[in-house]
Amino acid sequence: MDTLEAIRQRRSVKNFDIRHQITQKEITTILEHAILSPTSYNIQNWRFVTITDQSIKNKLSELSHGQKQVSEASLIIILCADLNSWEKNPQRYWQNIPEEPRNALIESLQKSYRNKPQQQRDEAMRSCGMAAQTIMITAKSMGYDTCPMKGFDYDEVGNLIRLPDDHIITMMVVVGKATKAASPRGGQLPISDITFENHF
Amino acid sequence: MDTLEAIRQRRSVKNFDIRHQITQKEITTILEHAILSPTSYNIQNWRFVTITDQSIKNKLSELSHGQKQVSEASLIIILCADLNSWEKNPQRYWQNIPEEPRNALIESLQKSYRNKPQQQRDEAMRSCGMAAQTIMITAKSMGYDTCPMKGFDYDEVGNLIRLPDDHIITMMVVVGKATKAASPRGGQLPISDITFENHF
Repeated sequence: MDTLEAIRQRRSVKNFDIRHQITQKEITTILEHAILSPTSYNIQNWRFVTITDQSIKNKLSELSHGQKQVSEASLIIILCADLNSWEKNPQRYWQNIPEEPRNALIESLQKSYRNKPQQQRDEAMRSCGMAAQTIMITAKSMGYDTCPMKGFDYDEVGNLIRLPDDHIITMMVVVGKATKAASPRGGQLPISDITFENHF
Repeated sequence: MDTLEAIRQRRSVKNFDIRHQITQKEITTILEHAILSPTSYNIQNWRFVTITDQSIKNKLSELSHGQKQVSEASLIIILCADLNSWEKNPQRYWQNIPEEPRNALIESLQKSYRNKPQQQRDEAMRSCGMAAQTIMITAKSMGYDTCPMKGFDYDEVGNLIRLPDDHIITMMVVVGKATKAASPRGGQLPISDITFENHF
């Protein structure tokens, strides 16, 4: 599917065919494209938890105020981030480059995040936001629809997926075969209200 | 360009043709697709400041540790967010839907963000992350390359663009005609290190 077409057609769909099964190959295609999304310092701080088991999807729906797109979707991807990825064996992010520039990058990386919890959290949200959009348009181009979600019980979902202490959940994306088109857009702001030339 | 191809070909490019001028029509195409990116509650909290003026690009390059992709790019988009968009005339986000569900949405929206500065900031980063990836793959499909950036002097850039007090800058994306391909990927983590089935 054409890129601009996929962007235009992507909508937050709320009704999916619960009987549809996504294949492992399709899941792999989505994840392989998600991880091509950029991250600052190539830190690759996102972690993706995939769920296709119906009983877990039902549980996640309960933890999302009963929203049925969660139980009906073929795949749920819970986007998480490792807040401490900056200090865990960082040379792996640039293993293909020479030692000298690699060491400079490691020093700069650690200066950016050490003792800076807000920076670590911002990076989690930013990286996962970029990856989430990649997931949604990848899925769209494969004939799937999606819904990005942040309205759920983060603590309980964290328990369910055994979230490590130094990780956070940033959002979820559900993926499935639409049985009903999304409602028309609710109210787009005029482009002149949200874009500015040179300054506000 | 095919969607998956655009995602695979998007790389962070550091060398652009400073003589290339992007047209206003091309800038509009990029922005019109950016604003189709999803936001929680359709809050559309992103604000996009576009810069094509060479003297401002030079100044922004200085404020970005002298990184020359900033001065060489044809277009700089500074992604900002209005932290208080949740309380500013929120009925506009759902003007096309009936009053009763609209009022319920407004109540839920305000409960989500009122007196919750971390939630407001998370939403800024998440929304802008999704829009940034839309910008980058839209540009790629139009024959441009991009570089997402967060390493710059946020306070000074804020002064330059007259950032309102209740807005934040989340990141920048520079857009231009590549004169040199990106370096090979620095070190991709094995997919098994970052994806998990059902739980960590």
